[in-house]
Amino acid sequence: MAAETAEQPDAWRRLLAGTGPDGASGVDRAAALVRERSPRFVLLAARGSSDHAALYAKYLVEIRLGLPAGLVSPSTLTAYGARPDLRDVLLIAVSQSGGSPDLLHCVRTAREQGALTVAVTNDAGSAPAAAASAHVDLLAGPERAVAATKSYTAQLLALYLLLERVRGGTGAATRALPDLADAVLARDDEVRHLSARYRFAERLLTTGRGYSYPTAREAALKLMETAYVSAQAFSGADLLHGPLALVDPLVPVLAVVSPGAGGDAMAPVLESLTARNADVLRIGGDGPGFGLPAAPAEELAPLLEILPLQMLARHVAVARGGDPDAPRGLRKVTETL
Amino acid sequence: MAAETAEQPDAWRRLLAGTGPDGASGVDRAAALVRERSPRFVLLAARGSSDHAALYAKYLVEIRLGLPAGLVSPSTLTAYGARPDLRDVLLIAVSQSGGSPDLLHCVRTAREQGALTVAVTNDAGSAPAAAASAHVDLLAGPERAVAATKSYTAQLLALYLLLERVRGGTGAATRALPDLADAVLARDDEVRHLSARYRFAERLLTTGRGYSYPTAREAALKLMETAYVSAQAFSGADLLHGPLALVDPLVPVLAVVSPGAGGDAMAPVLESLTARNADVLRIGGDGPGFGLPAAPAEELAPLLEILPLQMLARHVAVARGGDPDAPRGLRKVTETL
Repeated sequence: MAAETAEQPDAWRRLLAGTGPDGASGVDRAAALVRERSPRFVLLAARGSSDHAALYAKYLVEIRLGLPAGLVSPSTLTAYGARPDLRDVLLIAVSQSGGSPDLLHCVRTAREQGALTVAVTNDAGSAPAAAASAHVDLLAGPERAVAATKSYTAQLLALYLLLERVRGGTGAATRALPDLADAVLARDDEVRHLSARYRFAERLLTTGRGYSYPTAREAALKLMETAYVSAQAFSGADLLHGPLALVDPLVPVLAVVSPGAGGDAMAPVLESLTARNADVLRIGGDGPGFGLPAAPAEELAPLLEILPLQMLARHVAVARGGDPDAPRGLRKVTETL
Repeated sequence: MAAETAEQPDAWRRLLAGTGPDGASGVDRAAALVRERSPRFVLLAARGSSDHAALYAKYLVEIRLGLPAGLVSPSTLTAYGARPDLRDVLLIAVSQSGGSPDLLHCVRTAREQGALTVAVTNDAGSAPAAAASAHVDLLAGPERAVAATKSYTAQLLALYLLLERVRGGTGAATRALPDLADAVLARDDEVRHLSARYRFAERLLTTGRGYSYPTAREAALKLMETAYVSAQAFSGADLLHGPLALVDPLVPVLAVVSPGAGGDAMAPVLESLTARNADVLRIGGDGPGFGLPAAPAEELAPLLEILPLQMLARHVAVARGGDPDAPRGLRKVTETL
């Protein structure tokens, strides 16, 4: 997990180099197909960390493409055999391995039902890659640790590039990201030092809004699957609609607050947390907390925000005697129906 | 909370009596409008408990109406000012009070952007009721406890009736529900007895699949906001994609397993939990665990499943010296932007 976390900037460089008219990533081909078909509604199908990348893409679709979007509940197609009318729909399936049968089922059913289907995976030979109309290859190299790191941020980047191409942009803003990530990853000692205070935390909350909400979700999953912390993620607004009652000084909060509209919308949430004497660590912006370099654009901040949180989960896991490469009860490829 | 929990069967009877050609609920008028406009995509907007009712409706839309659906991320419209193309879209806004500004903003923006809008609230005089093309009144009577109970199940019933009318059904299967609920609510002593073993649980997992996944979500919220338990809800499939690592004999699991496709799909999840020596209480079906009478149809089981879980949350809260009518840090109407 440590090695794969460190590989992220290079993985992104590979994906950026592989994106272009004849690029190995397939981003441009997929984007051209989407532009040709002009879908009116976008569905995203994924599980686990990939579902958080899908949620990030949902924000991009709604805000930047101006299309309504939804996350697929795969059981409607698998357990219940639903056959919805998917003409004018773009279905994007996101997965590291492409190995879960329910995801393949989603792609096949969506295509049969009239959707344009794009699979975004780290394995060009995977079944969803073959079943979909187009495939975007993450080019992240083999990922072996059970806890996804480089495949997650490669998914964010690939989805951003895909949707940026669909709307006619160049995605040039992404070029600065790998160097910025190198600077963040160089602060591993700082994160290890920060992690000490979570050594005995059994419960934890993560929160963020807008583009940073998927970061909060992914951070919680990393902490759950490696350090076995009961980490719960809430959008800042949802936190106020009930779960805030949970918060007391013994439940630490990690708040992702990057500059921009999403971070600004966190202000009332941070106020409410302060009123409850919560222990809040801010991630993002220029502190207090764990500050981050300014991303080239708000919608690209999630690629940087997750890095210290991946490191934090690993340090807490290791401090607890765990093995973040092989969490108890999990395998690298989870097969659900 | 106890009184409002007990009122549920009568609230449902009122809603059923108020549904028909000239019914006070407005269900038939809203359904006629939806049929006339024949939307191709459905969006649902809600927060808190209402969001779980919206998730239930998403399953109904996908499985029974055969239309793609999505849950709105309100911040895309409020914080980011997105103006998506919503022609051919039905937006259903679900709220008890209708008092949160972001929900009103969703309804207004959706209508301006071409969507047909239906508000489902417990207050015919609320702003979203006025702003939407049609209003469905829950007819649940005033709800005073911060933790929603009767408004939640009235939302489930109203959404079921609305979508059933849209597909041309009568909704007659619902007639049996109030008496079945009376029988479940009469078992309060049994639930109080069961609740004793969660007296000192700080963490807890809830899980379910398909129509029962919203029940798991709502149960977790009830436990969080009244008993301050760090309760996490996962769809059975998502649980296997990472959070399973959390599970050990000290993290109790409440598994909603009603008869039908969703309950059947829980079989591998229950197996994995058993393999991790989890402490699992099954809710639904004919036991072991807390059995429930057979619902008239699988898609109506959520109305019964949540009842013992509402009672459980209240008993745990009271046993801990809490006041489930006034949880710390919360108000009845949460206003988020």
